[in-house]
Formats: sequence, structure tokens, C-alpha cells
Amino acid sequence: MRNRYFSAQPAIQRAAAQLYESAKDLPLVCPHGHVDPRLFADPDYDFGSPVDLLIIPDHYIFRMLYSQGISLDALGIPTLTGAPAETNHRKIWQLVCDNWHLFRATPTGIWIRDELADVFGITRKLNSANAMAIYDDIAAQLASEAFRPRALYERFNIEVLATTDTATDSLEQHIAIRESGWGGRIIPTFRPDAVVNIDAGWRDNIELLGETSGTKIYNYVSYIQALEQRRAFFQSQGATATDHAALTAYTELLDAATAESIFQRGLKGEASSDDANRFTGHMLLEMARMSSEDGLVMQLHIGSWRNHNPALYARHGRDMGADMPTGSEFTRNLKPLLDRFGNHSKLRLVLFNLDETTLSRELAPLAGHYPILRLGPPWWFYDSWLGIIRFLDAVVETAGMYNLAGFNDDTRAYPSIPTRHDVWRRACAHWLAGQLVRGFVDDEDAHAMMRALAYDLAKDTYRL
Amino acid sequence: MRNRYFSAQPAIQRAAAQLYESAKDLPLVCPHGHVDPRLFADPDYDFGSPVDLLIIPDHYIFRMLYSQGISLDALGIPTLTGAPAETNHRKIWQLVCDNWHLFRATPTGIWIRDELADVFGITRKLNSANAMAIYDDIAAQLASEAFRPRALYERFNIEVLATTDTATDSLEQHIAIRESGWGGRIIPTFRPDAVVNIDAGWRDNIELLGETSGTKIYNYVSYIQALEQRRAFFQSQGATATDHAALTAYTELLDAATAESIFQRGLKGEASSDDANRFTGHMLLEMARMSSEDGLVMQLHIGSWRNHNPALYARHGRDMGADMPTGSEFTRNLKPLLDRFGNHSKLRLVLFNLDETTLSRELAPLAGHYPILRLGPPWWFYDSWLGIIRFLDAVVETAGMYNLAGFNDDTRAYPSIPTRHDVWRRACAHWLAGQLVRGFVDDEDAHAMMRALAYDLAKDTYRL
Amino acid sequence: MRNRYFSAQPAIQRAAAQLYESAKDLPLVCPHGHVDPRLFADPDYDFGSPVDLLIIPDHYIFRMLYSQGISLDALGIPTLTGAPAETNHRKIWQLVCDNWHLFRATPTGIWIRDELADVFGITRKLNSANAMAIYDDIAAQLASEAFRPRALYERFNIEVLATTDTATDSLEQHIAIRESGWGGRIIPTFRPDAVVNIDAGWRDNIELLGETSGTKIYNYVSYIQALEQRRAFFQSQGATATDHAALTAYTELLDAATAESIFQRGLKGEASSDDANRFTGHMLLEMARMSSEDGLVMQLHIGSWRNHNPALYARHGRDMGADMPTGSEFTRNLKPLLDRFGNHSKLRLVLFNLDETTLSRELAPLAGHYPILRLGPPWWFYDSWLGIIRFLDAVVETAGMYNLAGFNDDTRAYPSIPTRHDVWRRACAHWLAGQLVRGFVDDEDAHAMMRALAYDLAKDTYRL
Repeated sequence: MRNRYFSAQPAIQRAAAQLYESAKDLPLVCPHGHVDPRLFADPDYDFGSPVDLLIIPDHYIFRMLYSQGISLDALGIPTLTGAPAETNHRKIWQLVCDNWHLFRATPTGIWIRDELADVFGITRKLNSANAMAIYDDIAAQLASEAFRPRALYERFNIEVLATTDTATDSLEQHIAIRESGWGGRIIPTFRPDAVVNIDAGWRDNIELLGETSGTKIYNYVSYIQALEQRRAFFQSQGATATDHAALTAYTELLDAATAESIFQRGLKGEASSDDANRFTGHMLLEMARMSSEDGLVMQLHIGSWRNHNPALYARHGRDMGADMPTGSEFTRNLKPLLDRFGNHSKLRLVLFNLDETTLSRELAPLAGHYPILRLGPPWWFYDSWLGIIRFLDAVVETAGMYNLAGFNDDTRAYPSIPTRHDVWRRACAHWLAGQLVRGFVDDEDAHAMMRALAYDLAKDTYRL
Repeated sequence: MRNRYFSAQPAIQRAAAQLYESAKDLPLVCPHGHVDPRLFADPDYDFGSPVDLLIIPDHYIFRMLYSQGISLDALGIPTLTGAPAETNHRKIWQLVCDNWHLFRATPTGIWIRDELADVFGITRKLNSANAMAIYDDIAAQLASEAFRPRALYERFNIEVLATTDTATDSLEQHIAIRESGWGGRIIPTFRPDAVVNIDAGWRDNIELLGETSGTKIYNYVSYIQALEQRRAFFQSQGATATDHAALTAYTELLDAATAESIFQRGLKGEASSDDANRFTGHMLLEMARMSSEDGLVMQLHIGSWRNHNPALYARHGRDMGADMPTGSEFTRNLKPLLDRFGNHSKLRLVLFNLDETTLSRELAPLAGHYPILRLGPPWWFYDSWLGIIRFLDAVVETAGMYNLAGFNDDTRAYPSIPTRHDVWRRACAHWLAGQLVRGFVDDEDAHAMMRALAYDLAKDTYRL
Repeated sequence: MRNRYFSAQPAIQRAAAQLYESAKDLPLVCPHGHVDPRLFADPDYDFGSPVDLLIIPDHYIFRMLYSQGISLDALGIPTLTGAPAETNHRKIWQLVCDNWHLFRATPTGIWIRDELADVFGITRKLNSANAMAIYDDIAAQLASEAFRPRALYERFNIEVLATTDTATDSLEQHIAIRESGWGGRIIPTFRPDAVVNIDAGWRDNIELLGETSGTKIYNYVSYIQALEQRRAFFQSQGATATDHAALTAYTELLDAATAESIFQRGLKGEASSDDANRFTGHMLLEMARMSSEDGLVMQLHIGSWRNHNPALYARHGRDMGADMPTGSEFTRNLKPLLDRFGNHSKLRLVLFNLDETTLSRELAPLAGHYPILRLGPPWWFYDSWLGIIRFLDAVVETAGMYNLAGFNDDTRAYPSIPTRHDVWRRACAHWLAGQLVRGFVDDEDAHAMMRALAYDLAKDTYRL
């Protein structure tokens, strides 16, 4: 269905189709995501079975099946307990297809359908009867040379793809990619959460940070030096951005003595949860300071309560679809950071969160004033058609178009990348078509905004 | 107007009409509401005057008139003070009709209009001039045999109707209905708020609970036994669900000693408000535990500040249209309950609330993961056309269709039940038609979702 | 474009055009705004250059340019530091036009475009090339007699325009207007924030209040007397309303001793921030009490964090586009005020805020019950097309049409007033057309609601 998802109103549909046409073949700029760099380091990388590709890594899929009483074990999700998970991938695929109705009117249902059609040429609707035939069809294609990740990179027309890497990562995969002489642009992103948020594993990660950076970390100053060393290394390997996650946007500038004493308590395993929160809030300021110096674009993801289901976490570990949104606040929480860096000419801070109420109330007003701010696209559950439309409705009037960061696919699922960009581009075309046909903007403006949303803003925001 | 409320876009309107047509004659499943069981126990039950039927029991109507300076006394609402309320029902009806413009574009305006047309065959618009003629018309019909509640039950095509009953109710009306041999299915719902929430009347209610259950309640353990006894009795009388209301979704598992000591302080009238809050939060966990054992579906209504207007409460009592929504939080508050029972195979918990911001941010993500959760339909002020559309927009993408609980009419106003289901079915048809025409779902999916929303989900969720 | 902004659906567009036509020529009622009364006191008032008129007073414009790295100095905004701001208005105008793309799809872009077309007859789109020609065109018109404020008042068809004036204002401009014999109705509004909120300048303002009111203010009682004196004076000069701003809607009735002791601490410069918050909350109750006696309509603007950017505030002062919305709460915060005055027959309280989540959750339910409440139109960032539509969607079903306060233009930018009313009237016509065509209301109702939104509600609410 060529004009799928666009308005049913003929004038708006025609305008949407034209706007979409003008942008659909622009290269894909992918400045934030979670694709494993090994896909590109190994020229012969094999995705495995259809279940390895489409089900096991996709928490959007298995969380929904789980919500209706299907165990993760039955879906082949490995356990940490040693309990055997299902290993028969045909059986898993059949189970998913038997329950495919659960994905009616969901973004997952749309992505998988569009991905099967656009990447695999499979246009039948999944059901119990055709499950095995479709499995075989996908499996056969995955075995072909055309489905090596590097070949798909060309086919997908990707211009640049950023991975997300812990601060202590050696970036050996990235180095291998560059040394291989292959022409794709895969760049790392510096993600220091594990060495910033003082929790269970923090001390081990600090030790690792010392090793990787070749720094003896014994106090706050040497810790900061190690982080700066790692940032410089990431930058030397092509990184243009950092990424930070926190439950809240709380920021606080600690004085040197307080930072040092919390750091020392952390090293001794004696930091309180209040210590940890303050330290995280302080380190956001430190990271903003570093970004204002080295120019790495700072990303901040706020509001996800990780691993909300302890029984599931104990059995299967993290990223099991149990990260839950919480309410967020920015006007007050970000003020210490904005007081210090809000008007800085070199710093750029891209904000993401999971509380749509902040979009029109806090994020758009802040981004429509502070020069350092850009608004990241809808994240996690909101990267849906309606999530995108609500986002544009909520932010553009107040923040304007040019304080947005364009699109991030933010996915582990590499072959879904073109589909995700396509849904974004369709949603933007649809939204802009309404603006155009109803006379809010003219044709010149609508086309410029279309290109900005599809391509320019991401490239400009991330300094790519 | 046959296609009223549907989109004005012809393709979507046609699709909506077809979807609506496919579901409009399905039986009405009414798993949650406040109809008085006496209507069915007495085969000759008489609704009284048009004002008795349509005005005095409907706080949607008189709150709006009150907001524009019309006293409840003038509307015939009885006082607790002994002050005389208006008893001339013709005069009251005239007053309402004189101010009927206040209901323009409100759900009340729509329900009354549709109810008058569909149930009474009255299609004229209410106004000052025709008030008395319409009064006479309604009164004449109410006097006829066709307007006995049992006859309407058949005419309305109700399949099952649940009432809401306090934990200490003898259920004598329900017993009488069943013993009468009449074929309608009227079932009770177990609502223990008055014996759970430690406030002014709690001690009296505990005494009553002891009497009704035939248990001597002297400590927490005997209290729990009494509650379990009552649940079993309700279940023996056909109940399939419980209902609980709280200002917040706070849950906490108290240890046995703490539960006991709060309970004892309560018995002595010495419980603090913090005690009461913790006890309510703890009892939600106890009720979840009981439901996980006896299989009664647990309903939770969160966020209504009851009787917000003290002067009105003193004069007229409760349910005067002054229950006010408050902000709610679930991700954190429900965690103790979910930690313990979130993955239980037998427990089912249906959530309702009055804070639309929680729909996409908390409720849909939680319901799209935890197997025990289902989302109740929009409640109180949100059971409007736009409230329904916003609900579907906010939850379906993330929770899917099959973690919803279908529709509840949740009304005291028995003759409005078909209208309320009709508005829901129209809104769902309209919403699904947009999904269908724009290619998000195909015809098979749209029709299956229509039937689910109109009928299947309610029946399945409430184990009816 | 005659039918601009209306739905593209032909039936709705036609209905919108008819509804708009029925209301577009109604006089403008302007009960709340920030136009300087000097414009009307001086019959020869000159607006200055196009930049004086359109850029320098408009924080919507310069905040957006600032967010993209353009300094306020370069836009001619005066500094408090003595640093020279740009004084070449042609250069400033060119800079704005060079960056006009930033206003695509924003309300500012729409207002300026419509204002240039409707007030100046300039229909070309601003760009770098035509900037100087358009500057000259505007400048020439501003020099003409037709652009004296009194002439524009007639041309704009204004019926009444309220300014906003501090409690200590002599109202000399208003007196001069009335004494001039000119027929326009310009009335003051009593805004006591500076003598109520105990902050840095409060003591000086109390001194000024004593002088202006001719009262020796030495304790809480004399302070209240001075305020009552000023209210009476404002009322004698035509005021029908007061205006109050607070960060939150917190209200609290202090006993006399507490009020006195906080007041005394304030006079000594020893009030804590908790003192200040409680005093503000208490004074809202006092002001409600006074309004219940003198009948001045009370306006309350909640939720704006003023001057959020300290560096900008230090350099340029207040009203620089850095007032940021915060989350609000009303159900709990307003309860002390509502407990005391919620059912009062003479008091009227108009609520404004910057947190859209409160609209359906708190404000509409409260206004749909309490007789004293009316809901003000969308404020600050929400006075946009989508802000208006979301407002109507969120409140009308629950509060009805007749608990709304109609429209406020709330602007400093006098020549933008007709455009702002026009956008409001178009948005209302569009919204009502959807209600009409889809059968929620009939033609009579839609036209009555159109007139109410455009004219009647503002006049009635503000007792004009």
C-alpha cells in the first residue's frame, strides 16, 4: 500500500505522498543506536536463524507475548539460572505466529510487516498456517551473501551509523572495521553510565576504567582524568557524541571536597543512595563541562526504570522489556546545569525522555530558549506512529523545527533500520502535509522541513 | 443521524459504519456498575417520575447546573440538614430544560439525547417550550409495563450485569433475584473499601463485618478470615470480581506485627493517617493474594478525591458531583504488589484511574509486560467521546488490544446503559476505521478488534 | 488564503467558514493584556521603527533567535550592564529576516504573517532579499496618522481593552485617557504581586503602597486596609478585575497571629522562603475574600518560573523569553480557598496555567462543579493553534462551554491583537465545525457556542 499511514483526506494524502517522495531516498543518518559493531567487523557475519534475527533480540516482541502469559523460556530467551530455554527455533517461530494477533495496531506489528515486505519481499500476513513457509523463506535469504551486514549497509543506503559503547570498551571492533578498509562509516558513542552511577558493579568498573585508560584511579581528580582520556580516545576513533542515562534529570554542582568524599565512599563500598544520586547529578555537570571543551555532543536519556520486574531480571537478566517509564521534570532539575552551561556556544545537549507531558510543558520551552539544547526524537514506547505525531504536535510550535535533533532509530535490530526511518519519514510527511494543505506553511517551507526532519537535523545536531 | 460521531472523511465514515454494524447488536456485557439490585428483585419496580429517573441520580447533570449557580435544593436533591428540597418534579424538569444549553458538546448532553431517542423515541431537542410535553411523554412511558427493569433487561439485550456491593452486604436482593426464577444474570461485586480504609466509620464497619461473616474479629488474623469468608460468600452468589478504590496506588507489604499493631490502633480509634495509608496499601497486597487464590478478578480505581466540597457534603452527602481527579503514579507505587504477584498465572488486576498522563507513560507499558494486568476503560469524566479516543490512542500501540478490559458502563442510571455502550462502540468503530483505511491494520484485524472491544474483552477479562 | 487553518475535509471546512463568518466581525473584547496605557493617553503616540514595533517588545521572537545562537545584543535588546546593544534597526530587521525560517510552523510565524497582511497589507513572505523593502513599507505606514493607537483602536473594532497595572500605580495614564474625552474604553487591572510576594523588592513596594494609598503600613491590618483602598481606587477608574501570579496554586488560611508575624518578619527582611510561600498562599485567600466583597473578578496565573536563565537576566532583565513552565496541581492546592469561597455567589475566579495535564484532570472537573470558577484560555506557549485545539478538546466535555472565560490576547504587542483574536476565532470555528458536521451538536448550538467563544464569554466572565 503505497500511501499507507497517510491521512485519508485526499488533498493531505497527495501532499504527504509528494513530501515523502522528496525524502524517501535520502541516505540514512543513524546517530544513536545499539547495533553490535561486530556485525561490521566480520565481513562474513551470519545473523543465524529467523528467530535469532527477529525474535530473541527484540524486547518489543517478547514483552507483549509475555504479557499474555507466554514464558520467555518458551521464546528461547536464555536463562541465567541454567534452566533450559527452548532451542527449537521453528517451534518458537510457530508460537510467535500463533499469537501474531497480539501485535495488531502496534508499532512492532507494523515494523515486522514492513521489514518483511521491504527487506525480505515477504508480503503475506503472518499466521499459524504459513509460519513454517515464511520461516524457510527468511532462513534461505539470511544464508545468502546479500544478507551480510556490510551488503545490507549499502542496500539500506546508510551514511553513518553510531553504536553505543561503554566507557571502558577497547573499541577493538571499531578499530577492526576501520583497518579492514571497508568504506562504511561506523562510529562509537561514549557511554559512561557504568563508571558514573555508583551501584553494585561500580567499583569493578572503576578498576576497569583505570586499566583501560592506563591511569591509576585513587581519587576524584584521577577519575576525571581517566574519563577525559577515554573521551579523547573515543573521539580519535570517530565518536562525535556521548550518551548518558539517569532515572531523573537531577543535576547538582558539588564542590570539590564533597565530590571527593562521595567518590572515596564509593570506592569503599560505603556510598549511600543519596550519595549516588548526587554524584550522578554532579557528573552530568562534569560531562557537560567536558563536552563544552571537546565538542562531543551530549545525549541524555531520562526516566526509564530499568529492570522493573525482579523475578524476570533474576531469571533472564536485563533488557527483557521490563524497563518502565516514570514521570520526569526538567525545569527545576536541569537548572544547575543550565545556569552554568545553558548559554555556552560549543556545548550541545540532546534530551530524550519517556514522559510526554514534559514535551510541551518543559522540553519545548527550554529548547526554544537555551542555545545548547536540542530535542531528541520519541524514545522507547513512543517511537510509534502516534508517538511521533504527538511529539511533533507538542514541540514544533514552541521549540520550532530547528531545535529538534531529527531521527534516531535507537535499535539493536539492524535489519529494521530502514523500516524505522521509513515510518518516521512517513509520519513527518503526513504531519507536514496537514500543515501545508491547511495553510500553516507553504510548499517551500514544507519541503525544507521534510528534508530537515529526514536528514539535515540529525547530521547537524550530531556534528556528523 | 445514522452515522453520527464518525469521521466526516467519507472512506473512514464508511468503514466505521461497517465496523459498527458488525458489533452494534452484540449482547451487552456489564461487568462493572452501580445499578441497584432492587430494580431486578422487584418484578414491578417503578422508576418514579422522569426527574427520579434522569435527574436526581445523575451527578453528571446536577454538578454542571450547580457550577452555573443553580442550587441542588432547587434540583430536588435531598438535604441531610432537614432543609426542604424542591419536590415539584415538573418545576425541576422545567429548570433543567431552561438550562439545557449548558450541556452542549458534553457527554451528558449526548447520552440524554441518545437515550431519549433510543429508549423513549423522543427526538425533539429539550428546551423551555417543550419541557412539559416531553415530561408527560416520558412519564407515560415509565408507567407502562415495558419500562419495568426486567423488561428493559431483555430489550437492552444485556447478557450479564454486575452490581457493586459492600463487603458487609447480605446480598439479599441478589438472592431474591435468583430465587425468583427470572432468567437475567445479575451478579454482585465484592467492594471492601469501607472495611479496609481506616477512617471515621471503619470501626462500625468492622463490627458489621464480624456480624455478617459470623466471625469474632479481635485481631488482624480474624479480620482476614472474615474477609475471606465474605469473598467466598460473594463468589457463591455469582461474583467474579472485587473492586477497590484508593486515592493513590501506593502498595506496601507490612510484616505481620506491623499489620497487627496498626489494626489494633484502628480498633482503638488511634490510627494515624499514615497508619491508614499504609494499611490501605498493605490490604491491596492482601486482596491481590486472595484473588490469586480464589480467582476473583481484582479491580482498582485510583485517584478520585471523594467529596471535595465540604459545604456540599455537609448539606447533601456523597456522590454530588464533587469527586475530583488527582495526579496518579503507578510505576513506583504498584511495585511492591507487582514484585510479589506481577507474574502470577491466576491473578488478574484491572486498573482504572483519572490521570490520563499515566496511560501512555505507565499503564500501557506495565500492562504490555506484566501478565496479571489489564487496563480498564476510561472512567468518570473520561467516559466521553474524546476521552475514549485519547485512551485508545494512548494505550493500544504500547499495551496492544488484548491487555484491555473492554467496556464498563459504570453507571447508576440503568436506562442509560445501552446508550453508553453505543457511544463506546461508535467510538471504537471510528477509531478502528482510521486504522483500517490508513493501512495500519487490515479488514480481518479491524473486525476482530471491533468485536473484542465491544464484547469479547469484557467477558474474558472478568471471567464471565 | 480565505479558509486558512480550517480542516481540509470539505464538509468541515465549509461549516468552519460559516461559523467563522458569523463571528469574525464581532467587536474585540480584551479583558487581559499588557498594552501600555500611554499608547492611548498620547493622541500622537508614535510606535517608532518596525523593529521597535515588532521585534524588541516580542519575546516570542527573540527567544527563538536566541535559541539558535543569535545574541539579544545583536537584536537590539537593551542591556543592564551598559554594554551597547545594536541600534541600527535596519541591520536588526535584516538579521531577523535572514533567520525567518526558524519560525516555520510556529505561532509567531503565523501571527507576524497574518499581522503584516491584515494590518499592513504586506503579503510577501519575509526573506533576506525583501527585508529592506518590507522595512521601508512598514516604516512608511507607521509614520501615517492611520497608525496612531487611537485610530487603530477604531479600525480594530475594539470594544474594551484592559491593561495590567501594579497595585501602586497612580493610574495617571488611565485618568488622562478618560479626561481626554476620547471614546475608547481602556481600563486598568489590579495586579498586587509586587506587594504580596515577599522577595527582594517587597519592602520598597510596601513603602510605595503606603505612600500611594495614603496609609501608614506598620502591621498586617494596615497593610490589608491599604490594599483594599487601592482596589477601591482601581475600581473607581473602571477596573473590573485583579490579576495574580504565583509559581504554584498553593493556598493556606493563616490565623491572624501567624499572618502578622510573617508580615513583621518581612518588614525586617527576615522572612524565610517558607514564610514567603505561605504568605503568598494566604494572600490568595485574602484577595478572594476581597473579591467576594467588591466583585472584582480574580485572575490567577500559575506555573511560570520567571527569569529561568540567570546570565540573561543579569544582562537584559525580565521578560526575555526565559519564563519556563512548571508542573501544576490544583485539586489539593486550591482546596483551602475553595473550602472557604468555592460556593460563593459573588466571587469569580479565572484560572490560567502552563501545565496542559491539569486541563482535563483538575481544571475542567473543578470548573464543572464550583460556581466561582471559570477557565482562562491557553496562556504563554499554549496560545497557539494546537494549544487552543488541545484546550477545547481537554475542557469542554467536562467543564462545558459556559465555565470558560472566552479569549484573552494577553499581549504587549498592540497591533497583533486583531490577529490573535482572528486565530482564536478560526480555531474555535474549526473545532465547532467538527462537532457540528459529526453530529455532536446541531447548527443552533454550534452558532451559539461560536458567539460565546468569540465574544459573550469574555464579556460576561469579566463583568464588562
